[in-house]
Formats: sequence, structure tokens, C-alpha cells
Amino acid sequence: MFQTPRGTRDFLPIEMIKRDFILETVRRVFESYGFDPLETPAFEEWNLLAKKGSGGEEIKNEIYYFKDKSNRELGLRFDLTVPMARVVAVNPQLSKPFKRYQIGRVWRYDRPQAGRYREFWQADVDIVGAKSVEADLECIVVMVEVLKKLGFEKFSVRLNNRGVLNGMIEFVDIPKKKSPAVFRILDKLEKIGDKDVKKELKSEINSKKVEELLELINRRGKPEGILKKEMKALGSNDTARIGLEELKEIVEKAKVYGIADRIEIDFSLVRGLDYYTGPIFEISVETKKNVGSVAGGGRYDNLIELYGGNWTPATGISLGVERIYEIMEAEKMFRLPETKTFFFVLCVDEKLKKNAIRIAQKLRKVGIPTQTDVMGRNMKKQLEYVNSAKIPFVIFVGEKELKSKKFTIRNMINGEQKVMNIETILKVFSKLIPLS
Amino acid sequence: MFQTPRGTRDFLPIEMIKRDFILETVRRVFESYGFDPLETPAFEEWNLLAKKGSGGEEIKNEIYYFKDKSNRELGLRFDLTVPMARVVAVNPQLSKPFKRYQIGRVWRYDRPQAGRYREFWQADVDIVGAKSVEADLECIVVMVEVLKKLGFEKFSVRLNNRGVLNGMIEFVDIPKKKSPAVFRILDKLEKIGDKDVKKELKSEINSKKVEELLELINRRGKPEGILKKEMKALGSNDTARIGLEELKEIVEKAKVYGIADRIEIDFSLVRGLDYYTGPIFEISVETKKNVGSVAGGGRYDNLIELYGGNWTPATGISLGVERIYEIMEAEKMFRLPETKTFFFVLCVDEKLKKNAIRIAQKLRKVGIPTQTDVMGRNMKKQLEYVNSAKIPFVIFVGEKELKSKKFTIRNMINGEQKVMNIETILKVFSKLIPLS
Repeated sequence: MFQTPRGTRDFLPIEMIKRDFILETVRRVFESYGFDPLETPAFEEWNLLAKKGSGGEEIKNEIYYFKDKSNRELGLRFDLTVPMARVVAVNPQLSKPFKRYQIGRVWRYDRPQAGRYREFWQADVDIVGAKSVEADLECIVVMVEVLKKLGFEKFSVRLNNRGVLNGMIEFVDIPKKKSPAVFRILDKLEKIGDKDVKKELKSEINSKKVEELLELINRRGKPEGILKKEMKALGSNDTARIGLEELKEIVEKAKVYGIADRIEIDFSLVRGLDYYTGPIFEISVETKKNVGSVAGGGRYDNLIELYGGNWTPATGISLGVERIYEIMEAEKMFRLPETKTFFFVLCVDEKLKKNAIRIAQKLRKVGIPTQTDVMGRNMKKQLEYVNSAKIPFVIFVGEKELKSKKFTIRNMINGEQKVMNIETILKVFSKLIPLS
Repeated sequence: MFQTPRGTRDFLPIEMIKRDFILETVRRVFESYGFDPLETPAFEEWNLLAKKGSGGEEIKNEIYYFKDKSNRELGLRFDLTVPMARVVAVNPQLSKPFKRYQIGRVWRYDRPQAGRYREFWQADVDIVGAKSVEADLECIVVMVEVLKKLGFEKFSVRLNNRGVLNGMIEFVDIPKKKSPAVFRILDKLEKIGDKDVKKELKSEINSKKVEELLELINRRGKPEGILKKEMKALGSNDTARIGLEELKEIVEKAKVYGIADRIEIDFSLVRGLDYYTGPIFEISVETKKNVGSVAGGGRYDNLIELYGGNWTPATGISLGVERIYEIMEAEKMFRLPETKTFFFVLCVDEKLKKNAIRIAQKLRKVGIPTQTDVMGRNMKKQLEYVNSAKIPFVIFVGEKELKSKKFTIRNMINGEQKVMNIETILKVFSKLIPLS
């Protein structure tokens, strides 16, 4: 028997209905903030994906690489940011800010494990052409709105700034060439913990500097408070000062969106990809059983120039669709049917088939998802199918019903029956269709 | 500068809005007929795709082949039918009929040419588990409905049956092993014309048999009439007879759907893929400048068994999304804006930014796609952006407006202005949002 390739999955209707609910919600919120859709190919030139500084460096070994039959070197995209940056580079005519969203699959040849797949979906918004932190904030706000609309109540936004991190490196006087290694170690904080991070850092730089750095990084407290303290400690360094001022502005302006109390400053936040240049952020949701980062992003002002475009500031955020799905599933947050079909028009007698089809067509015409028998089954078999397919409503079509023009509708979940004429059915049920 | 790999394209928002319109319409119609969504990985095991009889044989050279880092042989999917058949084979628990739709990209390493791409989208419905031609007919009906909903008025359904074709081969006494070659030649009829088809056939089989075969194939006229004539000519052959009876039943039952007059019997229709076993069909649209096949499909009763499943009859149809897009574009059938953004909340004075954001948030909350400045631009620059981004409505936010709680709205297309309070704006404009 053929299986899906390792690390990939099929999504049967019962799962797809939930995934569609997520993606539709995401799309609506993205569009409500004025983001327009963009689509790019599934694969890109290998040189684009593997370019140093594009984020490709650290996940180069995870890219699905192949050659086409003309020996072109290609790779499946590993995120949606790199293709978008290419699009902007080759399309300088696009009005700025260019606000685009993209929802789609990406591939990484990672070791498959619980909740990690080799093919997975991301949903991104990016604002290109805006240098102001208002753009960064808007990206955060959009994603918070997505989470609210999906039903999450508790979430937090962790915020840092690559400028602050770079400033710390300068301030503590760590050689600049060490900073990628230092960031890589800091990035593992959640995974390996304080103690091991300290140990690893000490293998790279001298102990005193490690202690100094960790003191700067470990400051905790209310955003305004720790930003003020950090400014006192670091403000003499220009890079750090600018970064801290940006963070202050974000915290301040978050108030108008009503999300200021969800923001935490976390100087240990690094985010792996090396293309970030300014504010970086990560959103976590807190539920009964789960706490975890579900979205993250940041500013990457140099990426578009790296691909041959004009220097163009940009910022964006990416939602991990698989993570959201798993949490919503674990928390039983989905309230969705197992099929999109709403009605089954049951033909009591095969010779009335035409009548059943005509009624089905009327329901379909007003947008009510409807099935009718296509297998010449008798009434009992049709009902068995309705039950196994979990179709919620049945309308019975027999001689009597056609004569009286009144039809029995059975709610298959609670067994209730009602008698109605077709016009009433259309009116009542077209309003019941779940937003689709 | 990096380009998209040969044969692939980016879709900028202006194109994506049109493509989304097509795909959304398709999705709604598919769901209204009780089809549920399914999703499968972008790549499959090479052995599955290349399996003889799966359709892979004839397009084997067009499959994007690659190995993953564990040396697994993989290939990008070339259609949506083969993956779906695999899903059904490994999931025998699915209720039958299993009615699923799938909309997504597929890849073929074809020679790129006008309207042919290496990455393209298909939209499929299939009914699995139903042997009756009612299922074939429903697939045709669904696709006709899609075309109507997209705005096409003239279309025709060409219908044939692999059984009839096989019966003809037997009847004319052409060696069975020649039939793939014969079908391959017949399949080129539209491309190379009558004369060349005849010539090529004569290089395979003797002249008299070619003439006999072509007489059977070239019968034209009203469906009922030619089916009757063909039955007289061929009915002594069982395979042909069963096929002709199925066609007759489809033509008869099409009446209740009101599409009988769109159906043409075309015995020259072959459809390339070798997995078809029964009725086959192709839908063409006729417009001022274009005539062309936009959808096609047929019955493939043995495919699921081929992949190790139980023998399960199945039928389906596939819409060529690129073809539809091109025709609709050429015929100027799209009536869509260039951006999904509806409103730009223009901040007259930077210090009123908070107020502008609050108003934008209100519009977004009721689902109206809204932008506001994120670049600290002055009024003139904001208006320039609105014009270049083709945003249809602007709402001006200044001291005066905030005081009076009345806001000027400018229609950027015709220059008209109206003054309204926020509640009225929300009420009026939330109704104007194009179905999204």
C-alpha cells in the first residue's frame, strides 16, 4: 500500500473542515487590515534559497533540493518571506507600503517529530516600504486579532529588537564576529535552559562578559520600567539606544489598539533567521493544557536589497498553522460539523428520482450544500449513508409529499421532525449555513 | 536579479484577486453539491506516480523527480486524481459515495508555451464508490454550474465512453495490443486534423479497418439519433452496447438538470490518461474570441484497486484553472477591484493618528478591509498612495471631523463626497463589501 512520503500527511474532510475554518478566519482578518493576496511558486532557484543572509544559511540542509530536466538547480521554498522579498525586488513598481498576505505550504527536511512536519502551512502578513515601527505594530495587532477571532483569550506578545542585541554585543565588547554564535546559543534558551546557555556562552567568550551580557538580557518586569532601566545601562551605545526607543514607541502605541497589557519585553528573544534587523516579536497563547509560541516575525530591512532590489524596509509576521490546529484540537475549540453537506434529499422511491433531484437543485441554488442519492440505493441504505456521513438534515421525498407539497425534514442529530413546504425550507435553512 | 523558475509565475494581488474570485466560486459550487475538501501532499512516492495505468506512464517524462536526503524517490504530483485514489485505497473506512473536491497546484515538466505552465492549478470533484452513471452526470452538472456562476453562457459537453471505443476496436477486429496506439492517434484529432490522423492510423493498421473505424467514430448529429444509429452498427458487440446504453442514460437523465441540449456525443473523444474505463467527458466554453475545452474527466473504476485498495468504482472531473483565467481575462469578464482594500482612513494631522487608528479599527471590526497610514506621511502623500494603490474610498480624519463627529467620505473613482457619522458609515459600507 502506498503511504504519504515521510513527514507529510493527507487531510481528510473531517480535518480539512477545521483547517479551512482556521485559514478562512485568517484570510478575513488579514484582508480587513488591508492586506492583499500574493502567490509564488512552490519552488525557487536554489541560489535564491541558499543565499547567505536570506535565512537559507542556517536551514540550507533542510531544503528539498532537486534539478529539473534541464539541470536547473531548484529547491522547495522553506518560508514565504524569501519568495515575497524576491517579488518585491523584481517589481519596483508596486505601491508602498506594499501590504501582502500569503497562505501556503512550505517544506523543510527536518527530523519529523510530534507536531513537526516536512510539509506544513504558514500564513504571513508583511508590510514592505514602511520604516516606521507603526508597521511592526500593525503586524502584531493583525495576528492578535486572528488569535482572538479563532477563540483564544489569553496570549502574550514577547518583544525584542535586534538593534538592542547588537548594541549589547558592542557594549559588552564581544568581538562582532562572535555575535552569530552568541545569538545561536541565546536562541536555545527555551530548549536547553539558563544553565546550559551560560555554559555554552562561556566556551565562546570570557566569563566576565558572559555575566555582563546575561545581566542585560535577563532584566524582567513591566515594559516601561525595564526599558527605562535598560536605557540607563545601555543608552550610551547608539545601536542599543535606537532599538530601545523603537521598543518604547511600540509599547506606547500599542495602547490605542488595546493590547499594551499583553506586551512583554524579553531581551533574550533572538529568533533564528539571520535576516532580522530591528524589532522582533513572538506571540504565545496560553490555554489549559498548552503554552506555546504560535506566531513570530520581525523587521528585515536589508533582505530585498540582498536580492537585487532597491533598499526597502520591511517587516512581517508568520502564523504557524499546524501549531494553531493542534492547540485548538487539544483544547476542543472547534465547533464544526464532520461534513459540509447540510441536506440529504432522500428519495423514497427510485421512480421519484427526478423530483428528488429537482428539490436538491433548488437547495443548491441558494447555496445550501446538498446531496441526493447517486447509487440507486433504497431508503434504508440511504439513511445508513446519511448517518455514517454525519449529514445533519434529511428531507424525505415520496408520493405523498409531492402531492401535498409538504416535506418532512428530520434533524439527524436529535431526531426532531418538521413539515414544511419548499419555500419555507429554502428561507429557513439558507440562513443556517455556517459562514463558508 | 532572481526570476521565478522557468514555467512558473508569481501572482501579484491584481491577478490573485481574480484567481481568488474563480477559486471561491468553484469552492462554493462544489460544496453546494455536497463535496467535501481533501488535501494531499505536494509530492508523492515516485513509484505511485510512475505506476503503469495510473496515467503516470504517458507523462512520466514530465514528472518533477527528486530524492530526499534519505534517498527516497519522490515526485511532484502531476494531477489530483492519483493522490485521491491513494487516499481512498488506504482509507477504506470512508463512507461511500465519498464525494470530495480538491483545489491545488500540480506540476508537469512540459515545454512552456502560451497558456501552458509547469506549475498550474486544478480544481477537481470526484465521486468514489458509485457505479451508476448518475454519478458521472452529477460531475458534469457541477462543472456546468461552475461555468455558469463564473459568467459563461455558451458551453457544450462532449461525451464519449471508453467502453464504446474498446468495443469499436473489437468490432473492427483491430488487435487489442494496438488499441493504445490507436487511441493516442485519435487523441490528436483536434491538434493535427482528420487527414493526418488517417495517415497515422494507416501506418498502424490496415486501410480497410481504418476506414471502418473512422466511419464509426465520425457519426455526428443529435445525441438520441446517433446513439440509435451507432447501436444498430455496433450493438452486437457487448462492450460497445453497454457503453452506448450508459451514454443513452446520461443523455436522458441530463434533462432533469436542464442541460440535455448542451450535450454532444463525440465518438472521437479519447482523453489521454489511460486509467479511464467508462464515460468520458469534456466541457468547452464558447465566447466571442475563444472556444476551448476547460474541463474534462471520466470514469476510472480500476484506479483505486491498482493502488492496493478494494475495487471501487469512481468518476470525476477536473477544471483547468489557468485556461478559465485566460479566457475570462481575454473576454473582460472580471469586474473586480485591483485591491481588496475598501477604505483608507486618512489622517489629516499626525497628532490625530490615534483617532484615525480607532476609526480604522471600527471599520475592520465589521469586516471592511481598511488601511491607515503606517509611514508618517502627510495628507498629500497619503492621497497619492490611495490613488496609486487604487483604494476606492477615503475617510478624512481631522480636528473638525472629530469635533462634529461627521466625516467626509470621498469616492476616489468618481470624486463624489458625502458626510456621515461613523455608525452610518459602518452600516452603509459593511453591506457594500464584495462577497469575500
